[in-house]
Amino acid sequence: VSWITDPAFAPDAPFGPQTLPYGVFSVGAGIDDGFRAVGVRVGDHVLDLSTLAAAGSLPYPELLSAGSLDALLAAGRPQWTALRDVLSELVLASRRPPEARLYRVSDVRTYLPFTVADYVDFYSSRHHAENLGRIMRPDGDPLLPNWTHLPVGYHGRAGTVVVSGTSIVRPCGQRKPTSPNTGPNTDTDEPVFGPSRRLDVEAEVGFVCGGPVRSCVPADEVAEHVFGVALVNDWSARDIQAWEYQPLGPFLGKSFATSIAAWITPLQAMDAARMAVPEPDRPLLPYLRPTEPWGLDISLTVSWNGTVVSRPPFAAMAYSCAQQLAHMTVNGATVRPGDLFASGTVSGPAREQRGSFLELCWGGLEPITLDDGSVRTFLEDEDTVVIRATAAGPDGSVVGFGEVAGRVLPPRLMG
Amino acid sequence: VSWITDPAFAPDAPFGPQTLPYGVFSVGAGIDDGFRAVGVRVGDHVLDLSTLAAAGSLPYPELLSAGSLDALLAAGRPQWTALRDVLSELVLASRRPPEARLYRVSDVRTYLPFTVADYVDFYSSRHHAENLGRIMRPDGDPLLPNWTHLPVGYHGRAGTVVVSGTSIVRPCGQRKPTSPNTGPNTDTDEPVFGPSRRLDVEAEVGFVCGGPVRSCVPADEVAEHVFGVALVNDWSARDIQAWEYQPLGPFLGKSFATSIAAWITPLQAMDAARMAVPEPDRPLLPYLRPTEPWGLDISLTVSWNGTVVSRPPFAAMAYSCAQQLAHMTVNGATVRPGDLFASGTVSGPAREQRGSFLELCWGGLEPITLDDGSVRTFLEDEDTVVIRATAAGPDGSVVGFGEVAGRVLPPRLMG
Repeated sequence: VSWITDPAFAPDAPFGPQTLPYGVFSVGAGIDDGFRAVGVRVGDHVLDLSTLAAAGSLPYPELLSAGSLDALLAAGRPQWTALRDVLSELVLASRRPPEARLYRVSDVRTYLPFTVADYVDFYSSRHHAENLGRIMRPDGDPLLPNWTHLPVGYHGRAGTVVVSGTSIVRPCGQRKPTSPNTGPNTDTDEPVFGPSRRLDVEAEVGFVCGGPVRSCVPADEVAEHVFGVALVNDWSARDIQAWEYQPLGPFLGKSFATSIAAWITPLQAMDAARMAVPEPDRPLLPYLRPTEPWGLDISLTVSWNGTVVSRPPFAAMAYSCAQQLAHMTVNGATVRPGDLFASGTVSGPAREQRGSFLELCWGGLEPITLDDGSVRTFLEDEDTVVIRATAAGPDGSVVGFGEVAGRVLPPRLMG
Repeated sequence: VSWITDPAFAPDAPFGPQTLPYGVFSVGAGIDDGFRAVGVRVGDHVLDLSTLAAAGSLPYPELLSAGSLDALLAAGRPQWTALRDVLSELVLASRRPPEARLYRVSDVRTYLPFTVADYVDFYSSRHHAENLGRIMRPDGDPLLPNWTHLPVGYHGRAGTVVVSGTSIVRPCGQRKPTSPNTGPNTDTDEPVFGPSRRLDVEAEVGFVCGGPVRSCVPADEVAEHVFGVALVNDWSARDIQAWEYQPLGPFLGKSFATSIAAWITPLQAMDAARMAVPEPDRPLLPYLRPTEPWGLDISLTVSWNGTVVSRPPFAAMAYSCAQQLAHMTVNGATVRPGDLFASGTVSGPAREQRGSFLELCWGGLEPITLDDGSVRTFLEDEDTVVIRATAAGPDGSVVGFGEVAGRVLPPRLMG
């Protein structure tokens, strides 16, 4: 009997009161006059936190006055918990607070909700790592020796992280000439310059950091530094990546764009989804052995022009966010508010659970047929990809995540 | 007959009127009350720009009022040129402006002068790339096939860029057991966790970006987006790096700290140092063929506990900052104010021109003897490294750079 009568706000719906994800939005004239507000998604509506904070209905109003989550991220776990507790009461109250303003999700514009500090991308799905090893290094072991000992990762480009809905211009770059059957990288050919012919997605789960600046974070203290969870599409130009990536890793094959959801689901909403990660092959070094389970039972879907082509299971990931954060900071590197780290492509053991098209079409050799009859290997111009997910919620409910969507635009050729 | 009578401000000294590097400093009580000001180094003194801007003696005072170069970087080339022109006149005037405040360099504290947005590290010394290839991949070609076609690079951690003078805590991490003679990475051993035993430096030249946010920057327009030049020490834990770096590149072996000089030498001060880069083996793709020379005649020195152990020549670098920026943005990735990109280790063809200790001691096999008789391969605790440089200046002068210095502290062992 909440004052919010939206049926999509029911406890058995993904954006019910068990979820309450944060984002930044504007509405109507706000788009033109630059006014952005922090909001919380309730069903198919957005609750404006700026008016509630200004009216004194929320704790820490100073963290909610700017049109960004930056101040809230910088605050830390005690403030995050206190705010969520008050919000939970407020949205479940029977009486509408007089200063509450609700907007339909379809009527608002959303923005990148925080300033991305450093962006790190891990590689923590064993199935994905094995698949890529088989495709990109067919003569070697699919899994390199370090993979079973540590969560392999690298830094991506923070300045090109964009919010869901942003169109993705097909990148140009150097690549080896490609034939559909042999793929790139024939040793004798000279590289050519042009639009990527192997534009791909990576369906990932991202972790948004906040709290005090700190190094050497023990795995069991991850909740002090992770504010929430956002879906990520780490767009990848496989032909550019294949030519450039040795010995220093991916660079221009990734840096043109990384999309994240407009809505950050709080880490607290993951309580019912927590589970152990799969037992490692061999005991890990002590700093990577958490005593608390931080694997997450999240189910993703990848839609390509409306056809669900994959259902990657996050529960199969080999390293948790707790292990990733511990690893990332064990050398003395700090984590700071606005840091974003992503899981790496989520792929399960089955073909229909692969989180990238490179894996789904096995390097181009096994095309996919979409529901409209069209056949695909990699992305074509005007294609749209949407990644969605739900997690196990309390009392059999599900917890929702904001989708991450993007459409491919034709390349901008240099003059 | 300038009003600045410091002999170190003479036109034949590195920090004479031909240089005028920018930094951020505080003095006396300023350190405690948090007051920082933008300043320009004149000889062994710092000229406070905040008082001059407040008095109306400088154009664009709003770019100089905060204790950071961020606003100045965001402005762009027209403002950078106008400000430098006025400053040049002001420091060479015979009459002291009444509001001018000068402090001795030895009396001020300096700070990281701007907010680092994205940090990219290239790998553009052929000699360095060949040396590392021989040491780390002894069974393969020293230079990988892509190296002669593009400036190989990767993203580093922006949040751990620190200013010269910051002490560097020896990082801990995973590495393969090391013996002094065989080096790390024997295939059979399990990894161990502990302090790096192969802590190293990389002497580099960094480029500080500003101006409009833009992608696909033509090489000939680099000056619209590069504000100035700063020396960089890209501290590297070679044992951590060797174990982790495949297939996604360096991560924890680098991310614990990267030091940059406190003083940013304006790009305009490089005019007399500009020169062509060495002719490539084969013609480069068109976007990497600049029509203007952007190689730079900069001479570096690396001092280890006071002994000059190397004199790397930047003139030998294979790719210029113009080619690096063109490459970094050719895929549609934007460059934005605060971006920092570094050249990669500067190594010349001779042993005494190598810009890392890994190369100087050839993976540990050829120790170095310092002037005090001590013998070194990699860094020991309490060691200090200082990288200095000068560039060719106008009329036979030299242009100075702020040094980048750091001392190694013992590891902080996790509890």
